[in-house]
Amino acid sequence: MAPKTSEVDLLIIGAGPAGLMAAAWASRCKLKTKIIDDKDTRIRTGQADGLHCRTLEIMDSFGSPSIAYDILGQACVIKDISSTKADFSAQNPKEGCEEHIERCESVRSGEEDLPGSRYPQVSLSQGSVEQAFLNFLERDGDSVRVERNLTPMKLYVEEACVDDHDAYPIETHLRESGKDERAGSPDSTASEKIAAEIVRAKYVLGTDGAHSWTRKALGLQMEGDRTNKHFGVMDFVPLSNFPDIRISCAIHSSSGSIMTLPRENGLVRFYVQLGESAAKGGTFDRGKITPDDIIETSRTILQPYTLDYSHCDWFSVYTVGQRLAQSFSHLDRVFLAGDAVHTHSPTMGAGMNVSMQDSYNLIWKISTAIRTGNREILATYNTERMATAKELIDKDRAMSDFYCDGPSANSKRYQEFREAFRDFVSGVAVEYSPSLLTCPVNTSNGSIDRKGSPQRLEKIYSKPSLASNLILGQRIPSYRVTNHFTAEAVHIHTTLKSTGQWRILLFPGDLSNSLRFSAFQNLGHNLSAPSSFIHTCTPPSSLIDSTISILTIHTSNRNSFSALDLPNIFHPWSDSKGHDYWKMFARDNESRDDIYKAFGIDEEVGCLVVVRPDQHVGYIGELEDLESINSLPFRLLERPNEIYNPDKSVVREPFALETRDVDRQA
Amino acid sequence: MAPKTSEVDLLIIGAGPAGLMAAAWASRCKLKTKIIDDKDTRIRTGQADGLHCRTLEIMDSFGSPSIAYDILGQACVIKDISSTKADFSAQNPKEGCEEHIERCESVRSGEEDLPGSRYPQVSLSQGSVEQAFLNFLERDGDSVRVERNLTPMKLYVEEACVDDHDAYPIETHLRESGKDERAGSPDSTASEKIAAEIVRAKYVLGTDGAHSWTRKALGLQMEGDRTNKHFGVMDFVPLSNFPDIRISCAIHSSSGSIMTLPRENGLVRFYVQLGESAAKGGTFDRGKITPDDIIETSRTILQPYTLDYSHCDWFSVYTVGQRLAQSFSHLDRVFLAGDAVHTHSPTMGAGMNVSMQDSYNLIWKISTAIRTGNREILATYNTERMATAKELIDKDRAMSDFYCDGPSANSKRYQEFREAFRDFVSGVAVEYSPSLLTCPVNTSNGSIDRKGSPQRLEKIYSKPSLASNLILGQRIPSYRVTNHFTAEAVHIHTTLKSTGQWRILLFPGDLSNSLRFSAFQNLGHNLSAPSSFIHTCTPPSSLIDSTISILTIHTSNRNSFSALDLPNIFHPWSDSKGHDYWKMFARDNESRDDIYKAFGIDEEVGCLVVVRPDQHVGYIGELEDLESINSLPFRLLERPNEIYNPDKSVVREPFALETRDVDRQA
Repeated sequence: MAPKTSEVDLLIIGAGPAGLMAAAWASRCKLKTKIIDDKDTRIRTGQADGLHCRTLEIMDSFGSPSIAYDILGQACVIKDISSTKADFSAQNPKEGCEEHIERCESVRSGEEDLPGSRYPQVSLSQGSVEQAFLNFLERDGDSVRVERNLTPMKLYVEEACVDDHDAYPIETHLRESGKDERAGSPDSTASEKIAAEIVRAKYVLGTDGAHSWTRKALGLQMEGDRTNKHFGVMDFVPLSNFPDIRISCAIHSSSGSIMTLPRENGLVRFYVQLGESAAKGGTFDRGKITPDDIIETSRTILQPYTLDYSHCDWFSVYTVGQRLAQSFSHLDRVFLAGDAVHTHSPTMGAGMNVSMQDSYNLIWKISTAIRTGNREILATYNTERMATAKELIDKDRAMSDFYCDGPSANSKRYQEFREAFRDFVSGVAVEYSPSLLTCPVNTSNGSIDRKGSPQRLEKIYSKPSLASNLILGQRIPSYRVTNHFTAEAVHIHTTLKSTGQWRILLFPGDLSNSLRFSAFQNLGHNLSAPSSFIHTCTPPSSLIDSTISILTIHTSNRNSFSALDLPNIFHPWSDSKGHDYWKMFARDNESRDDIYKAFGIDEEVGCLVVVRPDQHVGYIGELEDLESINSLPFRLLERPNEIYNPDKSVVREPFALETRDVDRQA
Repeated sequence: MAPKTSEVDLLIIGAGPAGLMAAAWASRCKLKTKIIDDKDTRIRTGQADGLHCRTLEIMDSFGSPSIAYDILGQACVIKDISSTKADFSAQNPKEGCEEHIERCESVRSGEEDLPGSRYPQVSLSQGSVEQAFLNFLERDGDSVRVERNLTPMKLYVEEACVDDHDAYPIETHLRESGKDERAGSPDSTASEKIAAEIVRAKYVLGTDGAHSWTRKALGLQMEGDRTNKHFGVMDFVPLSNFPDIRISCAIHSSSGSIMTLPRENGLVRFYVQLGESAAKGGTFDRGKITPDDIIETSRTILQPYTLDYSHCDWFSVYTVGQRLAQSFSHLDRVFLAGDAVHTHSPTMGAGMNVSMQDSYNLIWKISTAIRTGNREILATYNTERMATAKELIDKDRAMSDFYCDGPSANSKRYQEFREAFRDFVSGVAVEYSPSLLTCPVNTSNGSIDRKGSPQRLEKIYSKPSLASNLILGQRIPSYRVTNHFTAEAVHIHTTLKSTGQWRILLFPGDLSNSLRFSAFQNLGHNLSAPSSFIHTCTPPSSLIDSTISILTIHTSNRNSFSALDLPNIFHPWSDSKGHDYWKMFARDNESRDDIYKAFGIDEEVGCLVVVRPDQHVGYIGELEDLESINSLPFRLLERPNEIYNPDKSVVREPFALETRDVDRQA
């Protein structure tokens, strides 16, 4: 019998957090998507459990009902982090106990206090995170559903066609899981006749974990090594009188170290140092470790406090190590993300986050390439995400050493250590280098910014001094602004939803000043002109904001000028929906949020900030500098073709009106 | 064929907002519940659309995933309310237009700024509100589902059995909707043989709307009258240049009045004055009114601004009137709630809220009666909710007159008018009179507080001066506190979830003071004693907090004393779950919320606040005054019997642990 065949824009191999993030984005972009997984259900217990504020921002960006709120409704919030160590000299030592631990530092996690952040650090089992994405896909329409019990057995890229826009150059053969185990290896010579399904795809994403079949199929190696340090990890309901059992702790005694993380449903996670094997990567006898062993070791470290458990939810033993793939992509047609390309220790709690952020970086670029035919953008995935993964691995190595060796006598060290890591771990400090998506700074001596690639830049430079607190290439921080027409206070991030749209944020200052009002009117006329880049980037039959959306944030009192007298480019008009009232904002005068001050913008000068579809800052320039922004980074959007269907591809939530009949009720 | 028969604790007739609120509560209380509706689907368009902050607080109290967040993700937030009227003397009148409207006042709705409030005023169609409850019921287990296309045809209460705890004294006959219309009237003599189903219930709640079959079956009359004022109401997508179209407006011109409310999905709702009929209640020819008529009248009033519409979602015509039922209950076995007992004009946007708050007041009382056998509590439903409905109707009459007649020349009047109504409309000012659930104040001359009923009070008096900003009988306001063990900042309302539990909030001040610590230890020992009311109110095999939960809020630094050295009554221990770490809190030192100051509590004196299962303040007294609180209001909980099953009836979310096998992963 001939296998079933199908053609898709995107095939995602592996439905863990990175794969599901890709599926959510692909669903929003209306890509024809297939996502498969070789197991029969989502993860039930254990595995990753840390979520940081940037990840929650991204989850929220997919719109309502929010994945972030789904998760925050279940998760455990991490507020305090304490460092606790053995102490022989405390004022009030417990009797009959020579060595005992005492809290020596208490640090706020405080991710929600980072600049422009709205979310705390939280913990939740990976299975529940996956379920939140599955719930989202269920609600987001009929198109993207995980197909389970499917294992890839062959992947072939037709190299001659990789630059052909209309081609489906990747052929992947799938079999039902468990039907023929020999076919599981990419090197297998198992005949094709057992393929249950053949998928022809424009793009493939491998999010199939540390033992990635996709990576092996591409012949890409992992570089790095394992150490000889072994940890037990266990999720359980603690029975204890340790006062910090519901706080994240780094506990050090002469018997070893424990890192703890409070979790949902009264659970805690312990990472417990079990010992070292003789040689690096040596096979510590992991098979013999039981939950009771992990608790027994913990009990010794935790004395004088008691510890027992009534329920073990999950446990495992791991060996510390850090490894990175040679490349994250192949011919810009097959991509890898998550554990498939970077593995490290779990102690930083960042792995699941970086993995999801990999695919969040990728999918809108694939969507852009498919819609415009311009594949140049795809190379930025490898450069942007490999640099981030490398930083992750370097930091993980340093943190693992710290946890294994314990803090120095200097009691401040833990806090300093935390602070050095917090911004990166939270995800908000990730900074993408200049590229065709991020315009560099023209340094005074005429040379290019350290990370720049001068060939690509075509003389368009950002002027970051106009928004001196924003960092090019970082995600834009979120502060509250007040909608000009509705008076609602909203976080600016809620206006930067993941729809695939680029945004231009205009900061014109006080529009009740008639000179500024006139100048802004002029800017609007220029942007509205048929020759404007807004028009050349937007397919003729599409809504004017479907590719690039213009948002205005002024400093005036909302009732002090007539906003509807400005050109419609600032509040687009449609004959079916009237004005779009969700694009003009006033600086928030009621809360402590002053977005001009927070961004470092002088309201007498103003500026313009280009925000990429993934909320990263792509360009900072003068309000009047249309010529520059006309060139970059929008050049890559200038070839819309008939594949591009704006009605399907752009989500415009305020207008997602159900078609309903007039229902006359007397 | 014999009809299907069933026995239930509670039969709910009508699945609108009031019925669904009852169903949600009943699901949480694990009552055996049947909810029927005579229509085949929920409301699709139109009807009620205003939600106020107390309603959102209640919705959130049912726990995670939150009904409130489900709704806030879709709703339109009402921030500004403007008053706009005809003006012939403005500085810059539009040319060629003799009369034109100008904004004369702009007022903040500001419900989220009311004391201890977390939620704004929002608007959302009734159908979406109903859907949020249906989603909740779906997630909350398998027990309560709306059964549609069922119409009641006979209701019989066996009066001899109303005080028999084990009886099911109410028999209700149901038929399939549309099968025999003649049987729809309670007076019908249609034979029983067409009953599709016979339900025997301990209690029945009629939430079947303004034309309530249940009310008619009980023979209860509505008292009140209709006016001769007629309004058109229409939900539509506006095409307009009126700058306040996304603001709630009261617009008055010489041509008439419009009240507007912005809505979800780009819709707005207009209430448009259409004219008066000759006689009160006279039949204005409503059948002839079309959407175009409503828009045409609005256009005249709105000049010089333009108005058109592309989509009419719903429209209707109503006559202003106010009516109240003689009683809300029958033999304390059959109850009525919502439009079934109070109808009024929709302009205040309070009706759906008051209706849902009716059934929120009732269901925990039914659950208490079923669990303890003590039916005395049920009489408070009628007294508490009739008083609220009467206030609603009085205010609605005043507001309708204001809207019809227009503001006076005094431009301040609208704002004053708003402020006088805001607290009541928001729901936070609703105040229940002294009863066996709310201990009165002992006024200085020995007489009882104006609303008190001296026979019931047994000499237990509240001492409200100990928490001088709390109002007995009102819902307790919510401020942030910090969990002592987890360091998480939480709103106190999130610790007062709708589980059926009573709460005692203890405010002992600074526990790092050793004298206070010792006194608090003593209090704990007293509460833990076998003779304590905690024990006499709690069935022997149940968790110690299953009926009355003790929450402590101190003012100390969290690390300054050893909370686990206090008696376990403050952090109950279970051998399967360890300590309960979610009952001790510190005053929040990070935000502006100081709960002691907000409640008016002197930290050197301290106090104790009893909070009813519906979050209303029942008692304020001294920390040491155990004898008083031992008597009331807990007396009514003292007769637990075998019907009471704490494992089924009490939801303890932090511990809602899935039973999972240890899943060993190497």
